[in-house]
Amino acid sequence: MLSAKEAGITVKKNEDFSDWYTQVVLKAGLADYAPVKGFIVLRPYGYAIWESIRDILDKRFKETGHQNGFLPVLIPESLLAREEDHFAGFTPEVFWVTKAGNNDIGERLALRPTSETLAYSIFSKWITSYRDLPLKINFWNTALRAEIKATKPFVRTSEFLWQEGHTVHATKEEAEEEVRMILDIYRELIEDYLAVPAIRGYKSEKEKFVGAEYTTTLEGMMADGRALQMGTSHHLGQNFSKPFDIKYLGRDTAEHFAWQTSWGVSWRLIGAIIMVHGDDKGLILPPKVAPIQLVIVPIHKDKDAELVKGKAAELAAELKSAEIRVHLDDRDEYTSGWKFNEWEMKGVPLRINLGPRDIEKGQVEFVRRDSREKVLSERGKAIETANLLLGKVQSDLFVRAKSLLDSHVTRPANYEEFKKTLDGKGGFVPAGWCGNPECEVRIKEETGADIRVIPFDQAGMPENCILCNAPSKKLAYFGRAY
Amino acid sequence: MLSAKEAGITVKKNEDFSDWYTQVVLKAGLADYAPVKGFIVLRPYGYAIWESIRDILDKRFKETGHQNGFLPVLIPESLLAREEDHFAGFTPEVFWVTKAGNNDIGERLALRPTSETLAYSIFSKWITSYRDLPLKINFWNTALRAEIKATKPFVRTSEFLWQEGHTVHATKEEAEEEVRMILDIYRELIEDYLAVPAIRGYKSEKEKFVGAEYTTTLEGMMADGRALQMGTSHHLGQNFSKPFDIKYLGRDTAEHFAWQTSWGVSWRLIGAIIMVHGDDKGLILPPKVAPIQLVIVPIHKDKDAELVKGKAAELAAELKSAEIRVHLDDRDEYTSGWKFNEWEMKGVPLRINLGPRDIEKGQVEFVRRDSREKVLSERGKAIETANLLLGKVQSDLFVRAKSLLDSHVTRPANYEEFKKTLDGKGGFVPAGWCGNPECEVRIKEETGADIRVIPFDQAGMPENCILCNAPSKKLAYFGRAY
Repeated sequence: MLSAKEAGITVKKNEDFSDWYTQVVLKAGLADYAPVKGFIVLRPYGYAIWESIRDILDKRFKETGHQNGFLPVLIPESLLAREEDHFAGFTPEVFWVTKAGNNDIGERLALRPTSETLAYSIFSKWITSYRDLPLKINFWNTALRAEIKATKPFVRTSEFLWQEGHTVHATKEEAEEEVRMILDIYRELIEDYLAVPAIRGYKSEKEKFVGAEYTTTLEGMMADGRALQMGTSHHLGQNFSKPFDIKYLGRDTAEHFAWQTSWGVSWRLIGAIIMVHGDDKGLILPPKVAPIQLVIVPIHKDKDAELVKGKAAELAAELKSAEIRVHLDDRDEYTSGWKFNEWEMKGVPLRINLGPRDIEKGQVEFVRRDSREKVLSERGKAIETANLLLGKVQSDLFVRAKSLLDSHVTRPANYEEFKKTLDGKGGFVPAGWCGNPECEVRIKEETGADIRVIPFDQAGMPENCILCNAPSKKLAYFGRAY
Repeated sequence: MLSAKEAGITVKKNEDFSDWYTQVVLKAGLADYAPVKGFIVLRPYGYAIWESIRDILDKRFKETGHQNGFLPVLIPESLLAREEDHFAGFTPEVFWVTKAGNNDIGERLALRPTSETLAYSIFSKWITSYRDLPLKINFWNTALRAEIKATKPFVRTSEFLWQEGHTVHATKEEAEEEVRMILDIYRELIEDYLAVPAIRGYKSEKEKFVGAEYTTTLEGMMADGRALQMGTSHHLGQNFSKPFDIKYLGRDTAEHFAWQTSWGVSWRLIGAIIMVHGDDKGLILPPKVAPIQLVIVPIHKDKDAELVKGKAAELAAELKSAEIRVHLDDRDEYTSGWKFNEWEMKGVPLRINLGPRDIEKGQVEFVRRDSREKVLSERGKAIETANLLLGKVQSDLFVRAKSLLDSHVTRPANYEEFKKTLDGKGGFVPAGWCGNPECEVRIKEETGADIRVIPFDQAGMPENCILCNAPSKKLAYFGRAY
């Protein structure tokens, strides 16, 4: 058995962020490395967080008229190539199947890097009339992109769990509405459930999804000052409906090309939870997505064991009946101290330490994971107090994350300050941009920062481009990113 | 727009079963062909049936102590090869990735035909002590096996949705208990939810899962007299724990190799639903897994439209509040007759035709999909009647399927009759078997039938082997299968 120290996180978050992150992923039992480089395995605890995220989104997607479907993972090369920009964007990282059993196969097959081409070749068969629109389908699957850069569990892996939504509409307006509605659903998930604030806006032409008309995005800020793209929702215009011949007969009896959107979030969101909320002890999970919201640790000597375990089981059952996700840790082979460390590392938002004295006094001792604050409650008010504290942890995590974000938005007076900030604490550096991709590219080359987001809210746009000093066209948030 | 006749099923189930099946799959909107031969796409209606199946199983798995995880789709060849029989069994149908982008990759990677080897190489890292056992993990994913035989949507495809469970135990007894418990859960799903009766028992040595100690199975009977394997649960013994080094330190402080199980069901089950319950009009879905349990079709002239649609919406809301999965079909661009045909083809178990006369009389007219029986109910008893009828459809479908199965179990007096039955109506032919694989192979060669199942219930075992006349060791159910 590992010592408590070996089992715990051995590095501080602000000393070696990258090592800290990896230790949390592995030691909290979220994921493990797979035998092929760049791939990971999800352990049950990590997968359960994904299930929380999936259930929240799935419900919202269905409420807003989407349905799920299934697409194969293999896409013929010729199909992937039908939209040129898209093909050029993805092929460098495509895994190719060239053999089945001992036989070479005719045309090589791509492992889905994303499903636009496959989905739309099929949608074109399903859509003939305005009666068939809108078509709004989502797929819960994985995408595969051979990563050449350094990989990082959840944040950059060669296969990742995600959802990809694909919709087809009769009009441009309807498609654009869909793009924004989905971004709103993502915002709700990310801010209200994951407790991570994010900045909403557009990607630049250079950074948009290859093949899209434009891309909208939610950008988060991690604790080390690097940005993370949390979710994107694309307006595809008619860029795919034309090559894939997605046409419908309108009420006007004329044929029209359809308008499309696509959008997705991935298990990156789990990476964001770790990087934003975690501390030196390990993970801190927002209660709304925590697989275990409250852990009960009975504390007793041998003589009290039966009594305390019995009362702990009663309390667990009571809290469960109130739909709180409770785990009773009554293992004999571990000490209470070991258990405290383990559940803190695993980020369970709330703990109850239940001992004989608590039972005697008719009280319950809660410990918050985020603040370590201890709260005594009457036994009769256990459910009420648990719900109150879970709500507080949830909202306090957001407040803390919001101040992390706010303290990482630094407006530079000039390009020198711009560079200094990026080399210093990093974060978002909002600046004026002339709209010329050449400036964008040069800034990237010189500073490693790209345009993360052009916020919907353009208030306070500086007058001049931070690089070339020409008049600004946009307020853009620059930053180094994962 | 298609004519009602073109949109409907144009062939009778008992005239061309295979064509009928394909028409149901495509026209009821369950699935469609993908661009790569042997692969299919699931449309939302088909995927929703899979979601029903998944939710039922997932709940039962979790109740019995299993958790979900995630494994990558790519497995290095060397890992797949570590258990010899297993490798030999699967490699002829493995898809191989040999390139990433423009680069050849070092060791070629298999697309998961099943995950034993990958999972167990990782489990061996997670398990060190008896404290880590049992480990019970399930994966909802797809498996890929390049099919050389003729493919058939849901029944035989080169990629299929399934779940694969993998468990590790300290003792053989515990592993064997798990094997049987899972088979029970499968029985419950298949018989009590899908309304398809199945025969439980063992696979022969020849037919067992490659690498297993033994395989237990549930075998169903399709309407054309061919058997379908519905689900399997394998006792792996220590066949994998030894090559994969899955050892644990026992309470006795000695090291032991662990005992393992694996088990799975796939979207084949949707194929079984179609083949067993469907009729000349199309699909008939068991209410418990039907995405739509009840469809309401308002029937009115223009002048009554507002009234009838309003009342239909009220009724729909009321039934929904009772957790009945209701769809209100108030489309104006289709006639009632068209709607009746469409919903019958899609197999919705119950329909309400709501017209002005029903509203006037305070009554509701139900139509059962399975028997076409019409049932009048008082308006005030709509929920009660709906639930009653849904229950009846569910149980009557099972009764009908049970008599289909029973009428396809024919005991032969001798090998001549055995062959005659297989060439005639097919079905299961229970016979004595000496236990010699040579007899099994010769029977397969001469009749196309293999041993589908050696029932747990061995009552009535004939004295002699149907082929060689040596004393029987087993009662075996032979049959031709999908």
